[in-house]
Amino acid sequence: MNPAATPQGVVAGSIPLFAGHPSLDLLPVDALQRVIAAAWQDSSVARFLNYGDEQGNPRLIDFLVERLNRRENLAISRENLMIIGGSTGGVGMIAQRLTTPGDAILVDAPSYRDALHIFRDHGLEMRSAPIDDDGIIVAELERNLRELAANGKTPRFYYVVPNFQNPSGIVMAVERRRAVIELSREYGFAIVEDDVYSDLRFKGDPLPSFYELAGGENVLRLGTFSKTLAPGLRIGWLIASAERITGFVESGLLRMGGGANPFSAAVVADYCRSGAWEAHIHWLRGQYRRRRDIALAALESCMPAGVEWTRPAGGYFIWLRLPPSAHVDALETRAKERGLYFASGKGIL
Amino acid sequence: MNPAATPQGVVAGSIPLFAGHPSLDLLPVDALQRVIAAAWQDSSVARFLNYGDEQGNPRLIDFLVERLNRRENLAISRENLMIIGGSTGGVGMIAQRLTTPGDAILVDAPSYRDALHIFRDHGLEMRSAPIDDDGIIVAELERNLRELAANGKTPRFYYVVPNFQNPSGIVMAVERRRAVIELSREYGFAIVEDDVYSDLRFKGDPLPSFYELAGGENVLRLGTFSKTLAPGLRIGWLIASAERITGFVESGLLRMGGGANPFSAAVVADYCRSGAWEAHIHWLRGQYRRRRDIALAALESCMPAGVEWTRPAGGYFIWLRLPPSAHVDALETRAKERGLYFASGKGIL
Repeated sequence: MNPAATPQGVVAGSIPLFAGHPSLDLLPVDALQRVIAAAWQDSSVARFLNYGDEQGNPRLIDFLVERLNRRENLAISRENLMIIGGSTGGVGMIAQRLTTPGDAILVDAPSYRDALHIFRDHGLEMRSAPIDDDGIIVAELERNLRELAANGKTPRFYYVVPNFQNPSGIVMAVERRRAVIELSREYGFAIVEDDVYSDLRFKGDPLPSFYELAGGENVLRLGTFSKTLAPGLRIGWLIASAERITGFVESGLLRMGGGANPFSAAVVADYCRSGAWEAHIHWLRGQYRRRRDIALAALESCMPAGVEWTRPAGGYFIWLRLPPSAHVDALETRAKERGLYFASGKGIL
Repeated sequence: MNPAATPQGVVAGSIPLFAGHPSLDLLPVDALQRVIAAAWQDSSVARFLNYGDEQGNPRLIDFLVERLNRRENLAISRENLMIIGGSTGGVGMIAQRLTTPGDAILVDAPSYRDALHIFRDHGLEMRSAPIDDDGIIVAELERNLRELAANGKTPRFYYVVPNFQNPSGIVMAVERRRAVIELSREYGFAIVEDDVYSDLRFKGDPLPSFYELAGGENVLRLGTFSKTLAPGLRIGWLIASAERITGFVESGLLRMGGGANPFSAAVVADYCRSGAWEAHIHWLRGQYRRRRDIALAALESCMPAGVEWTRPAGGYFIWLRLPPSAHVDALETRAKERGLYFASGKGIL
């Protein structure tokens, strides 16, 4: 195997801060090797090299259903969960199956750049409302809804990264979540909850998800192994109503290609069932907390007056607000010259 | 690992004849085990557990470009090829990026059921023309084109499985391919060449592909490792113009999730570069030829007068034509009771 290329335009050896990619030294390479080696001791391994169930690996589905019900106030069954190709696979599938070009959707400002890119590819009209440290400003969301309604439009869904958001690092407060759910019922839009960082909480208890708060009604919640195991395996999951899961599972894409990545999914299932995942998540939390502390200390000691930043309680992201006098383009150019790469808010605000 | 479920509605232990799924005993399980074990001896293995290049594994791209140029009359470069999640991933991507709901496309009758399902999911108007033993009847294709043109419509593309078609097993003759290419230039539609069975030719030389015959102009050609290696790895490739490949690579889906299945793709790259793939394809040809011979002999000895069938020179499929007096629904029900599963032409003719 040869090394994958360094991300586009990045000088080798520098640390790109612009993307939600784990550091290579945080991937449990040896544990995965052991799981895969053991898999080959099982005579049924060939089945996972063939096409798989459209809904995804059954053992991984059962593992996730049990884990989610045990850790959260949920009562989902296997009819509510399917395996997908990372949360990306879910966002793409939801955009393809739930919208047609010209449909409106609701997003945060700022929101996750690559998801917006997918929505743009699908020809969707994106209506954004600003966020503060507690998430979306509900009055602004409601203003968008009224404007859309005045034009006879109902948005298809509100897309949100509720925990440790990319790019801001903020967590949406419970009362905001409840308010959004109320609006979703009033105006009839779904909530797409891209919950990929919730396991990387450094302290305190996790907040109830949109899915839990809404009793599962009209919420599609995505999870992934990309942030807590290994992105290259391309495995995530979707929780939704049994009707929605059935609709997705019966799509042409899954009929033709079978469920998400059968071989990777079998590896992930074995890894999870060995107990290694929980231990790894625990270890990762410490690693990311330490890295966050270092980053915050560096900001504290180096940033000039007038710069503000978030102090995330989990996940990957710190979001800086520059004073009005700063020009982010010029700063980005100068930073790149020094081997520092960040993502600006252009195009996502 | 547990066995994947038997396909929906199929009695365990029977042989479903309705899908292009390889038999488990034809998957090179041991060779893949060796490749994966060797991969872990390489310190760069962690890179393939992270997000990968949007275009796909660079070494696999280079291997495929070299192989295609060597075996065919092609002069493609790495700008013309990207790695996808099986040919399914390519069909889905093409439908998503090249069409909007209501667009027309052209297909064979019969054509590959699951691809039609994907096109239906995208809201496409499918115009079909019948095939005979040499592929699509060009005059019928042209009639569709004239009718569409009369309504001011240009189809976005013609979708075809050119070699050992699913479900008929037929190969489209070269003169038909040339005629379709002429029409594609006259009417301005692309050709989507889903060429997943061409390596499974039992005798004779392969025919030049649409891609070759058209000099690469407006042809998107799909290939896959699903039929000649292992479907569960979900790896295929797309050949097209550099402009088209760039457009796909810059899509939101690939920006968000990275290229197709980095870990599987690295395994496939190592497997291919070991030389094992060519030897395995050679072995598979003999295996499938033998199975075809057995199936044809069984049809010869058991089928009543009035039933006709194709005698494919490669691939997976034999297509039976029943006399007008036969009722396929009743036959299907009775066959299932005996543990025999076939795909009828309903919905694809």
